[in-house]
Parts: sequence; C-alpha cells; structure tokens
Amino acid sequence: MTDAHRPVTPLLDKVTYPSDLKQFNDRELRQVADELRLETISAVSVTGGHLGAGLGVVEIATALHAVFDTPRDKIIWDVGHQCYPHKILTGRRDRIRTLRMGGGLSGFTKRKESTYDPFGAAHSSTSISAATGFMMARELGGNCPEGLGDAIAVIGDGSMTAGMAYEAMNHAGHLKKRLIVILNDNKMSIAPPVGALSEYLTRLYAGEPFHDLKAAAKGAVSLLPPPFREGAKRAKEMVKSMTVGGTLFEELGFSYIGPIDGHDMDQLLAVLRTVKTRADGPVLIHAITKKGKGYAPAEHSPDKGHARAKFDVVTGEQKKSASNAPSYTKVFAQSLIKEAEHDPQICAITAAMPDGTGLNLFAERFPNRCFDVGIAEQHGVTFAAGLAAGGMKPFAAIYSTFLQRGYDQVVHDVAIQGLPVRFAIDRAGLVGADGATHAGSFDIAYLTNLPGFTVMAPADEAELVHMVATAAQIDDGPSAFRFPRGEGVGVDMPERGTPIEIGKGRIVKEGTKLAILSYGTRLAESVAAAEVLDTRGISTTVADARFAKPLDHDLILRLAREHEALVIIEEGAVGGFSSHVMHLLATEGALDTGLKIRPMVFPDIFIDQDSPANMMKVAGMTTDHIVQKALDALGIASLDAQRA
Amino acid sequence: MTDAHRPVTPLLDKVTYPSDLKQFNDRELRQVADELRLETISAVSVTGGHLGAGLGVVEIATALHAVFDTPRDKIIWDVGHQCYPHKILTGRRDRIRTLRMGGGLSGFTKRKESTYDPFGAAHSSTSISAATGFMMARELGGNCPEGLGDAIAVIGDGSMTAGMAYEAMNHAGHLKKRLIVILNDNKMSIAPPVGALSEYLTRLYAGEPFHDLKAAAKGAVSLLPPPFREGAKRAKEMVKSMTVGGTLFEELGFSYIGPIDGHDMDQLLAVLRTVKTRADGPVLIHAITKKGKGYAPAEHSPDKGHARAKFDVVTGEQKKSASNAPSYTKVFAQSLIKEAEHDPQICAITAAMPDGTGLNLFAERFPNRCFDVGIAEQHGVTFAAGLAAGGMKPFAAIYSTFLQRGYDQVVHDVAIQGLPVRFAIDRAGLVGADGATHAGSFDIAYLTNLPGFTVMAPADEAELVHMVATAAQIDDGPSAFRFPRGEGVGVDMPERGTPIEIGKGRIVKEGTKLAILSYGTRLAESVAAAEVLDTRGISTTVADARFAKPLDHDLILRLAREHEALVIIEEGAVGGFSSHVMHLLATEGALDTGLKIRPMVFPDIFIDQDSPANMMKVAGMTTDHIVQKALDALGIASLDAQRA
Repeated sequence: MTDAHRPVTPLLDKVTYPSDLKQFNDRELRQVADELRLETISAVSVTGGHLGAGLGVVEIATALHAVFDTPRDKIIWDVGHQCYPHKILTGRRDRIRTLRMGGGLSGFTKRKESTYDPFGAAHSSTSISAATGFMMARELGGNCPEGLGDAIAVIGDGSMTAGMAYEAMNHAGHLKKRLIVILNDNKMSIAPPVGALSEYLTRLYAGEPFHDLKAAAKGAVSLLPPPFREGAKRAKEMVKSMTVGGTLFEELGFSYIGPIDGHDMDQLLAVLRTVKTRADGPVLIHAITKKGKGYAPAEHSPDKGHARAKFDVVTGEQKKSASNAPSYTKVFAQSLIKEAEHDPQICAITAAMPDGTGLNLFAERFPNRCFDVGIAEQHGVTFAAGLAAGGMKPFAAIYSTFLQRGYDQVVHDVAIQGLPVRFAIDRAGLVGADGATHAGSFDIAYLTNLPGFTVMAPADEAELVHMVATAAQIDDGPSAFRFPRGEGVGVDMPERGTPIEIGKGRIVKEGTKLAILSYGTRLAESVAAAEVLDTRGISTTVADARFAKPLDHDLILRLAREHEALVIIEEGAVGGFSSHVMHLLATEGALDTGLKIRPMVFPDIFIDQDSPANMMKVAGMTTDHIVQKALDALGIASLDAQRA
Repeated sequence: MTDAHRPVTPLLDKVTYPSDLKQFNDRELRQVADELRLETISAVSVTGGHLGAGLGVVEIATALHAVFDTPRDKIIWDVGHQCYPHKILTGRRDRIRTLRMGGGLSGFTKRKESTYDPFGAAHSSTSISAATGFMMARELGGNCPEGLGDAIAVIGDGSMTAGMAYEAMNHAGHLKKRLIVILNDNKMSIAPPVGALSEYLTRLYAGEPFHDLKAAAKGAVSLLPPPFREGAKRAKEMVKSMTVGGTLFEELGFSYIGPIDGHDMDQLLAVLRTVKTRADGPVLIHAITKKGKGYAPAEHSPDKGHARAKFDVVTGEQKKSASNAPSYTKVFAQSLIKEAEHDPQICAITAAMPDGTGLNLFAERFPNRCFDVGIAEQHGVTFAAGLAAGGMKPFAAIYSTFLQRGYDQVVHDVAIQGLPVRFAIDRAGLVGADGATHAGSFDIAYLTNLPGFTVMAPADEAELVHMVATAAQIDDGPSAFRFPRGEGVGVDMPERGTPIEIGKGRIVKEGTKLAILSYGTRLAESVAAAEVLDTRGISTTVADARFAKPLDHDLILRLAREHEALVIIEEGAVGGFSSHVMHLLATEGALDTGLKIRPMVFPDIFIDQDSPANMMKVAGMTTDHIVQKALDALGIASLDAQRA
C-alpha cells in the first residue's frame, strides 16, 4: 500500500505518544478515535492479524489514554490482540504496518517492545491478576522506572469465562484497593461465548437503555457526586432488603458501573474521569462494544473479523495463499467425524476454539456430542475425564500452549486415574505470526513422562488420520497426538484411518552408516537430509518414531546398534522425545559403545514471530541443519573444512 | 488400638454397603451418623490423616448414601480428604485403620479402590467438572458398568475459590441438565479462607436462622411442592423487578437452596429427598458445617483438625515423631524472613497453604508483604508476575504438584516475559502418606526447559538457606528452588544465606573411576554409595549439581572426561536434570567416547502411598540402588555373579 492509499488522519497525525492526547477537547478526541479506527483497518489490511478485537476498543483505548497517565498508569490489555489501536497511540504508529512480521511489531502486547506495554499477554484472562500485582506493588512501594499509578485491566466477556479471571476478582475484591477493570463485553470471544456467565451478562442489559442509575443503585454509590448519593443509597438499601447479593461482580467485591456504551466517547470519558477522581476500591466498568465495529465486512462476518489475512480494505476480501494440501486441523476434524459415525460414544471438547480446532465441523454433524466449555481448559480436561469415567470416548481438542492451562488436570484427573481421554493437540511446534506465546514447544516433555500415557505425532496428514483412529481405540489409558498449524504435505489420503500398532515406529528409508530418527513432521526434512547425505556417500537410514510413548524399544536399539551415529529430531523443547530415547539407550547400555548420538530440539530461547520457514531456521531444524548435524557427528564436516 | 477401645456402634455395625442404610428410619439414620463420627475419630486416632474435613461431612455422607442409590449415583467428594466417613459406609470399614499406610486405603477417593469412588481426587476443586462429565455421559448413554444416575459433587467453600470450580459452574449452568452440588461451607479450607467469595458466603447467612423460605424466594421454586409455588413465584418476581441477579450461584444458572444446617439430619434428608424427586436442572445446596464437628480437640484447633498425626482420642494429643533437624519448610520460611528483613521488596505468595508452606511465619513478621490468594494457583502465579513487573521481589511458595495448576502462567506470564518471580517449590519428590497425587515428580522437567529460568535444588537444609539468598538476588529472570517434605539431614546451619554462584555445582568427594552427579537431596545417599564403592576398589567422585539450569558445563564435561562411568540421580521423572545433562553431553560429543552413562529417575509408574523410605525403595533411589547402578554400568556386578 502506498501512502496515497492511507486514510486521512489530521488529528491522529499529531499524536506520537498518549501525552499528545491532552491537547484535544472531547469533540476532538471523538475524531481521534474515528481516525484511529481507519488507521487500524488500513494497517491490518496490509499485515493481516486480529482486526475485530482492536476495532471494538478504539474508543476505550483513546479514552483511557486521554484520561489516564500512561505509562505511569498501567493499562493491561487482556489477550493482547486488542492492542493495535493502543500501539498506534503509544509511539509505534510508524511500525504498525510491520505487525506480526519477522522483525516487526508483535501482534500482542509485549514488555520488550514498549514501556506502554506493562504486561504482555497473548493467552486470555491474565489481565486482572497482573493488574492486581501492579496494584499491590504500588501499595508496597515497588521499584518501577516509570512509576506506579493506576492498574487498569481491559478484559473481554469471553476471557471472563476463565477461572483465572474469577480467581483474580476474588482476590482483588478481598484486597479492597483501587483497581480498575473494564469489561469489554462484545458478546464474543472468538466464537460466540458459551456458558452461564454469558447469559448473565445478557440479562444485565437485555432490552434496557444504557443508563447510570442502575450503577447508582447497585454499588457504585461512592463514585457518584454527593447530591446523587442519598437517593442512590436508599435505592440500594431497598434492593438489599429484598435480596442478598447484588450483581455477580458486586458479590465479588467490585463496584459495578454500567452497562455503558463502549463506543460512546462521552460516556466513556465521563465514567473514566469519575472513576479516576473517586474510586477507592476495585471497580468494574461494564462497557458494551461491537467486535469489528465500524468496518462492515468484519461486523458481518461470523467471527466479527477476529483474525484476518491481508485484505482489500474496500471489499474486505482476504488475500489467502492457495494450497493443495488440507490443513492438519481439518484432517483431524474430518477423521474424528468419520470415527464418530462408527462409534456413538465418541464426543469432543473444545475450550472456546471451535473454529481453530476444526470442531465446528464436528459440532455441525454431532451437535449433542460436541462441548464448547468456554475459555476453561482446567474444567474442560476434567470434564473430559468425567465423560471418560462415564464410559464415553472424549477427544479434547486443545492447542499445545493452551493445554498448559489444564496441566494439573491432565496429571491429576486423567493420568493418575488412567482415564482414556484423548488429547488432540493442535498448533504443536512453531506457529508463525503468533510468535512465542503460541508456540507448542513443551507438550512432548510435559506429557511423555506421565505414566500410562500414549503419546503420538503424525509425520504427515495421512498419518494423522490413522492416529485419530488409533486414539479412538485406546481404551485403557489416556492418549495424545500432536500436529502442527498449517497445511499437510500433500500425501494421498486414506478413506478412513486404520489403527496403528501401539508403540511401533517405522523405517522409512534403509541405510547403514547413519540413522535419523524423526518424531512428527520433520520427517520430510529428515528424508531430504538423508538424500543429501547419501550423495556424499553416507548411507542413511530414516525412521519415523510415531510414538514418543511407549517408545519402540526394538527399533531404537536396532538403530543404535547398526549405525555409527544417530540423529534424533523433534519439534519441541529438551525433555521430550529425544530425552526419552537417550534415557532408554543409556539405561540399556547402548551408549557405552560410543554411538555418536545427536538430539535436535528447539533451542533454549523463545523465538519471536516470523514466517514458519524463518522460525525453523532460527530453531536450527531445516534440512541443511540436519545434514550439518549428521556431518558434525561423523566428523566429516571438519574434513571438508581441511580440504577447503 | 485393641478392639476393646473401639466405640460402640450397634447400628453402624449393620452397614457394610450403602444399601444397608435403607433399613433405617430417620431417627436411626441420625444415630448412624453419630456412630459414624465416633468410628471416624477412632480410626484417624490410629492412622493419622485428614480428620476435620471428614467430621464435618458425617451427616452429609450418611444422608447422601441413605437417599441416593450409589454406586449408580455418583458422589464425588472434592479433594477427597473428606471421604473417610464415606469409605466406612462403602464396604471399607474393615480396612479403615489402614488409611494412608503402605498397602492400605488411600487417604483420598480412588477409583481403583472402590466402585463407590467414581472419581478420585486429592487436589481441590475438580468435583463439579467431573460431575458435569458424569452428567453428560448419562445424557449421552455412556457405557458405565454400575449405571449412570445422578451426579453429585460435594465441594468445600475453600475449593470454591478456585477458578476451576467457577469454570465448571459456568458450563453446567449453561447445559441446564440435572446436577447436584453440595457446597460444604465450613468457613475453612485448610487455613481460614480468603477472598471476596468467602465474604459473600458469610453475607448469605449472616445473622439469619436457617430457613427454607429464602430458597423459595430465590430460585428453588421448581423444587417446591405445588401449594408453595404461587407465593414463592410472586416473591421471586418481586425480587427480580428490583434487581438484576439473584445470588452468585443463581447468576451462574444454578437453583440455590439454603443455607441449611449440614449437621441437621432432618434438614439434610428433607432437602435431598426433595431434590432427588424434583430437580430438573443444576442445583446448589448450601450446607453450613463445622470442620472437626463433634470432636472438641479438632473444633478448638486453629486448623480445625485439618490433618492429624496419630493421636490419643481422649486428650487429642498427637504422637509426632521427634526429630533434631528442622523441616525444609521451616528453614525456607525462616530464611525468607531473614532476607526480607534486609530487603523491603521481598514479598511472598501462597495459594491457601500458609501453614504448609511455612508462610504463616512470614505473614506474622510481614503481614503486608504476604498474600494468600486462595486456592488459585493460576492467579497466584500471574499476580506474582505483576508484582515483579511492578518492581517487587515475589516468592511464590507452592507445592510441586499444585504448581501444575499454574503451569501456563509460569510459561506465559513469567518465563516468556523473563520476570523475576521466585518459586519456592515445596513437597518436591515423594511425599509419603499423601501418595501419588501429591508426589512432586514433574517440576524439574516442566521448569528446566523454559528459557531463562534458573532452576536449583538444595542437597540439604543449609544449602536451602543459601538458595533462598541466591533467588533473592536473581533479578534478571525467573528462578525456582525445590525441596522435599520432611526434616533436613541435620547439618550445621548458617546464620544467613550467602548467594551461590549461578550455574556452579560442587565436587563433594574426589575419585577417579566413577562419578555420581546428584541433583537435590539424594546427595547423602550418593555419598554413602560412593563410600561403599570405594571399599570395593571403585574410586568414586560425587558431585552436587545444585543447578539443573543453567547447567555447570565445565563440571559436567570434566566428570564425563575423567571417569569411565557417570551415574546421574534426581528425585523426579525423566525429562528433567539427567535429560538436560545427557543432552549437553551428546551435543558436545562427550558421549562419543563410550562414557557409561546411567540416569536414575523416578520409574514410569505412579507410586502409591507408603512411608517415604519404602517409596524410595519402590522408586529405586536408595543407596543400594545407586551402588547397584554403578556396578552394572562398570560390568562388575556380572563379574561378581560369575564368581558366585
């Protein structure tokens, strides 16, 4: 996009930092918000990214920065993906068209990026906890270079379904110190939100105009100017005499203000100014917003423009790259549907990610057997365990990083009890534009050492079909299979999966000198590396482990015995597959003979967002890296170097 | 205890299984409950264990089993430690005096133990999720040998502070199917509960007699007999017109009944029968109970007899074994107090375990700097991250297994942001009577592969003092130190800790042929093993790694270079310290020369409760095991065998 196509933003052009907003009156601030909306749409059309959430908080971002004093006051954007307008207002407009690109701005808030991002987030529901931490640091005289003022969490109604948000409110409500939570209620998380909380929030403003009186009657009394107080107090008393509690939030110790219109700058500015002047405890401002607000193609899409590829601003059409291979996600969903057609006890669980996990397809076919539990991985895992104990065959489809939210439940409720919950772990490995927070780096390690688990990874999309069928048959304990984001490699697809023998890998290519043992989708690169090595006279075996647990002892010991060197590769951090292989070999004494063993795992760094290919380069996981590792192991590279 | 000392329990003697309760009228059921209380006290006096919780639910257990039809109906006891009376009523009275002993009954519910334990629990707040799973399995025709009837969760008010319970209510309230939750409100978790929820529950019955009318007005309308309904409905309508919500539970979609007196069998039986007959959606019965009820020494103790060593029934005096060495827990707490005396930015966080973590001592000294966040590890970790971002020095003191609850927060909020939160990980390794659910087996693996973390383990209690001081000084990233349950080894204690050089281990004993590299508190056994090996002519080096991350590269490479064999030992599952050591050695080519490397980790099983010493035998971690492992590595044992 050339500069000529950029929106005209005369007032926004005067804003480099939030302090620049202080020059504007309220009418001008409204215009700044409008311009900020245009600039956000324009930027995301170039970069792709989370559009809908940002558009929903344009006015909130503008009003917050106009009223409060950042970076001394801490604004914490829950999930972080609502932060594009905030980034534009906080010294990053000049780089906003590098969002989510390698070397560019993160698509989330990030402490390393700006002092205006006091707390990074990319997983949901952390903001109230973090804000409570800043609040108490302020009370205790914490040592913060920018100072410690107000702590403000902006959190969506979807994020409020997570237990963590409730834990934080329970604590903050108890501490009774000044803390500001803005509930950005757009009736959406990524999918429409589920759960009783969502129904409750709907009741809170069903059919009623936005007004302040309710706030007066319901606990925000101390925030109101004195003349109001008496009547309000009486109203409140009256309400109290009829019922025990107030709203859910008041019961947790928050003053509740709202609902207000989160796109009405006048309301926002008035409420925020009142809160800033008068709040002396935890306050929740309930703002109703529209995800995708102000951009018709987003407003009208089912996910309200949650995440967009680059698009044409006028038509809203997305510039998606065409691919012939289906995505792993879709292959998983279709395979599970196939299995469920033959087995009425198969059911599926998602934690607010029906589209991302492909379970929207499953839900269409089997609405009664598909459960969206909300952003609630802890509950989701144990709910699945309960289903399994009740004789169902639950598949919990959860991203690798998000399953970290349910880790104790995986250990305590699933593994210790040996319940046959099947975990379909999407987004395993590096994920590209979403960066380190979404990289599935740890699941191999955190699952493979749990007694009784079967842990698998397909090397391609056809293998995934078979592993879904395999998991469906594993009735005597928990199982998991992991697969990456993105498209498969384009192999022929079976009509339906055939269960694989548990704990059996396969030899893909026979050789004599060196062996490469791959776990997961680095198999293609392993085979390519083997071909390069063969041309250099190094006869190379390639094996696909398929299982990280139970390990294929025979295969692994044979590879160790019959080769001079063994390279092991997996897309995960140390502690996973290769650690288990080395543990086996060491315990069996198979390393005593001087096998040149070389594990290849993710490096000990968090890798910033970039193209998946570039991230694999940083991770040292390309075909070239495998070749180099093999040559190093055999001491051949140094021979080459001597020759040169 | 001889049989002569056992309580006289004529009616209870007629009960082997819950079906035997059907023979009794209500008056007799009251007597059964009284006898059950005496039997529970008597049993725990012999075995030690969780007394207070069980005494609080004697009537609830009796009433539930009398009214419902177990094991077809599923009673799920949250945390499981309230389950002793339930165990007595469900075919396990003959073994009740083996509670928590090796080979005996588990101190928690356990599926393997009885079909009357449909879902095991030992960590809190899982029961509503599990019950929701059973409920949906029932609706979907799950295949359960005992059948699938009602799903009933009994959960304490402390457990309700966990986000997981809220997630489950949010989901169950949305599903709208029949589900029964009994809120066992004893105003206690282990410590007095904290948080706004607790204050809310207090308001719910403050100063008011127990009555049913409130239930009528507040949403239990459909549960009442018809004549009641009209008036109740009107009352409800009136309330509705004045305010938006009802109680917190009703806002989440539950019919709320209560508060009722959880020790009044008549009330309990009446309410449960009504619910059994009429409930058609999720119901929450709010029962007020007294932890330790009916046993004065428990009722009068600060923790209400939460967990007891064996005791004298008459005096309540506990038979604790005397030890000269202080517990690691106490050493940690005292060391942290010392550091905090010199550094006003040190603060401490516990998730409802002030006594268990020793932070009660810290809280006495620094009440403003100690935070009990409730049973809320997710929030607790991110709250600590917020404190760290605000320039404080937070120490989060959380048991190894409970930190699993906050794993994603450790990754996403602490590690990725590189925030200097210090984790004091108690109960690392095997814990004895609490069994597998409380064994700290996985923390080394799940922390050590997080970039930027410093991960330590002291070999003895003096080392722990130094590591607290070390952690206090680590300002550039997160750190953790783990230590076991129980007493130290009795070494001389320093006045105050001296920070240890980061990533530096130490040689404890020099040798030439074999090296033992220990991480954590197996150092004493390693030294003892070395002495045995020396006497057999195998000159043995012993090193204390101190750090699992960063590894002491020089030390480890030297051990590998200068010895024929290397035994590595740690109290944790595979994937942790020894995996990192082997990864380093393999990557450096230090295994190419045929080093006989032998990692010793926990075996791939969940180890049932027993004495710590016996558990260590099962784990293969005794001095003898180390000696044997070393001999095996050197091939010497087989020579011995040949000679024999």
